[in-house]
Amino acid sequence: MAQRKAVVLLSGGLDSATVLAIARNEGYETFALSFRYGQRHTVELQAAERVAAALGATKHVVADIDLRVFGGSALTDASIAVPHHDSVDDLSTDDIPVTYVPARNTIFLSFALAWAETLDASDVFIGVSALDYSGYPDCRPEYIKAYEEMANLATRAGVEGRQRLKIHTPLIQLTKADTIRRGLELNVDYALTHSCYDPVDDRACGTCDSCLLRNRGFAELGMTDPALTTSQS
Amino acid sequence: MAQRKAVVLLSGGLDSATVLAIARNEGYETFALSFRYGQRHTVELQAAERVAAALGATKHVVADIDLRVFGGSALTDASIAVPHHDSVDDLSTDDIPVTYVPARNTIFLSFALAWAETLDASDVFIGVSALDYSGYPDCRPEYIKAYEEMANLATRAGVEGRQRLKIHTPLIQLTKADTIRRGLELNVDYALTHSCYDPVDDRACGTCDSCLLRNRGFAELGMTDPALTTSQS
Repeated sequence: MAQRKAVVLLSGGLDSATVLAIARNEGYETFALSFRYGQRHTVELQAAERVAAALGATKHVVADIDLRVFGGSALTDASIAVPHHDSVDDLSTDDIPVTYVPARNTIFLSFALAWAETLDASDVFIGVSALDYSGYPDCRPEYIKAYEEMANLATRAGVEGRQRLKIHTPLIQLTKADTIRRGLELNVDYALTHSCYDPVDDRACGTCDSCLLRNRGFAELGMTDPALTTSQS
Repeated sequence: MAQRKAVVLLSGGLDSATVLAIARNEGYETFALSFRYGQRHTVELQAAERVAAALGATKHVVADIDLRVFGGSALTDASIAVPHHDSVDDLSTDDIPVTYVPARNTIFLSFALAWAETLDASDVFIGVSALDYSGYPDCRPEYIKAYEEMANLATRAGVEGRQRLKIHTPLIQLTKADTIRRGLELNVDYALTHSCYDPVDDRACGTCDSCLLRNRGFAELGMTDPALTTSQS
């Protein structure tokens, strides 16, 4: 029997690197998908390339999509500043952060679906966690389930039940520390990854939301985030 | 009360031009969205621009997305030929045609969702018809309903019921002739539109699936398709 194929959404950050390692460990032939979506920094795409190679992805594709035409996010709109904080305790959990990109997971999953259909694959992996962002709408199990149902009505194979699309979310109930622990078991080299929203000279800033959440995860394991001491280029 | 905003997916073809006219007629301020998705011909984007201007869209945006990285469709892959037929009766209704682009409606709707969220709009219009392609999976009402449900779980406004996304499909039960009749009532100038998969010198070929279906619609109304006698550039 041929090895099963899976499309893995790979940002180059800590979560998606862990997910790629999990998919490989489950025996999938992996097709890693990243996006050039108008983000301010391309350092994360370099990280995605390193991670895909290090973890043995069969192929790595970077799809060009331009979300800047819609504006509205600090990650794609240079006129909106990325917020920085002194401590992870200062992060607000009530409001949608300005770093939110509208419908991003929905768009990313749609491209994964397109590639899966072309590859004749029925498995997609995404590194969302319902815990880190306190119920962020498009990171919750209900959303993923609804996406799967929609996707299975979008293709003839799905409608006929011949090939049901499955969206795998192995991190959905994991804290950042749990994720790091799992990745370390699978020999993920987190020095290769990049999660920072606002790098300075290609180094992680240490004070944006993403850096703070990640650093807390390493701290909980008694470790220091290797991205803080490693150049990301 | 401010005029309601709607995002309208606009390919520049007959169906989406009619949908834009319907949305305007229903009183929406319209934001027309087209895609540069690696299609072989840009003549359809020129048509979209003409149609958006003629029908009074407030804004027209062309989003760059590159579906060529996945391959697999005659519309985006130069190595796959677009099929031509002598008659509309020769069109197969059993198989997914080679002009199918994987997950295209899912991707297009995801971008519409992103723009709607940025505009604070809750209405999206798409010109799918369940009749023309005999139950093409992602043109059916069940698919559209599942997409709406997913989208309403993807945003906080949707989850809280403050702003439910509505996907409008005014053509879903219309034949091509019905659609043309409705568009003519709303003064759509179909000479501005472009639906051909394989234009020759910027003119509609008359023999691809899209041309044949469209020509039959005009013939049923005792008319000749104006696109056949008009340069599309």
